[in-house]
Amino acid sequence: MDTTRGYVLFEEDDHKVIWLGWDEDVSSGAIQTNQYLIVNSGKGILLDPGGVHLFSRVVSVVSRFISLDDVESIFFSHQDPDVSSGIALWLGVTNAQVYIHDIWRRFVPHFGLVDQSRITPLNDDGGTIALGSVSLQLVPAHFLHSAANFSLYDPRSRILFSGDIGTAVFPEGKEYPEVDDFDTHTRLMKSFHQRAMGSNRAAARWLETCSRLDVSILAPQHGAMMRGELVKKFYDWFGNLNCGIDFFQSRAGV
Amino acid sequence: MDTTRGYVLFEEDDHKVIWLGWDEDVSSGAIQTNQYLIVNSGKGILLDPGGVHLFSRVVSVVSRFISLDDVESIFFSHQDPDVSSGIALWLGVTNAQVYIHDIWRRFVPHFGLVDQSRITPLNDDGGTIALGSVSLQLVPAHFLHSAANFSLYDPRSRILFSGDIGTAVFPEGKEYPEVDDFDTHTRLMKSFHQRAMGSNRAAARWLETCSRLDVSILAPQHGAMMRGELVKKFYDWFGNLNCGIDFFQSRAGV
Repeated sequence: MDTTRGYVLFEEDDHKVIWLGWDEDVSSGAIQTNQYLIVNSGKGILLDPGGVHLFSRVVSVVSRFISLDDVESIFFSHQDPDVSSGIALWLGVTNAQVYIHDIWRRFVPHFGLVDQSRITPLNDDGGTIALGSVSLQLVPAHFLHSAANFSLYDPRSRILFSGDIGTAVFPEGKEYPEVDDFDTHTRLMKSFHQRAMGSNRAAARWLETCSRLDVSILAPQHGAMMRGELVKKFYDWFGNLNCGIDFFQSRAGV
Repeated sequence: MDTTRGYVLFEEDDHKVIWLGWDEDVSSGAIQTNQYLIVNSGKGILLDPGGVHLFSRVVSVVSRFISLDDVESIFFSHQDPDVSSGIALWLGVTNAQVYIHDIWRRFVPHFGLVDQSRITPLNDDGGTIALGSVSLQLVPAHFLHSAANFSLYDPRSRILFSGDIGTAVFPEGKEYPEVDDFDTHTRLMKSFHQRAMGSNRAAARWLETCSRLDVSILAPQHGAMMRGELVKKFYDWFGNLNCGIDFFQSRAGV
């Protein structure tokens, strides 16, 4: 499998979801990231297309599936550099509208010149983003880890793009795109979730919303995708993990 | 006062603390940021020197106070673009070592090429950064708002660089560098602290540490500095504010 070129996760009629692959060169020390593209009725949305140093690879993979002119939306789950530092480059090569939480609207221009009229700010509830005939659903994921953060659910493919939730930190050169052995995989997820996710209450809010969705694949921004019954396993695992301020307190024996 | 060129906040013997001013051009829509420089025994540390679009101004102001060759450390309170997107540029013009929480070590390369040997990762407790004859103290500020975040206390000047804590979001063109009327100023701080700070427990942990420090000026990364008795007023105000997950729950009437 050529992981630098990605592969199609779902295809039916006019709807397609693509995992865009990753860089083979991980020697930069940068954490591995996943980018995704959803295409419906010939129009596309990019999910967390990533930082400046990924831009040339990701733009070339995207163009294999859709003309850049037809990328009408870019979704940024949150403000981190690995998510959004390429924003000025993406605005340059597409006519896309950017969707990001309102609180980060005045932060992203710090990556470079950004025309504010290209940004659609999202409120805490999230709402939906239209793409062709489908209505993508924003799932609030605040404080997981970013204070203003969303997952995105595609009801057609039933893929939940979970952002930083579900992150695994691979040893360099040991990456895999999908989880096979869940229990072993938790060793790569545990430390990040304990330390970066804000609190057990924040996790419980997200899990409550997600448990009402019918999810085929949980697709995180870092680490590996989880299919089928692994989704429920992940929910159970995350729901039982002390994280953030609760992890600090449990560690201190408070 | 020429706010684009900054001014000296403290000077005694071989020790100096400088507020580096701000951009007059706020029309980019980028949130206003403060940068600071501490010089001791001819050596300097930069505190949150900021994003790429500030670089040319900040580097020229810094060079009025110290040779870039003598900037031996750069402190990043956390991973946000307004804090650190200029990292590759700063590493290019100085020989400085970068201090940032370990969890962000693999995120900052997403701003551009970063030699990992130039990064000194910080653990949760923080510790100290030596500068000439002074030992700067890192104050854990996790989940306020970043999951892995520090304030920095200079015991010589008694200035507490508070990072995003104490942020005020000014209407464009209405910036001021120091707070005069605290009660009016809280209107510019309230929404950001309620929404972005992680939880009341996270705030309480930071306040407990800070209350043991003798602070002359609280110097945030956004907004205005607070001197003397305003520091205690800020602690009281912040300690009584519902924020983050507690703000969400109070808003929902839970």
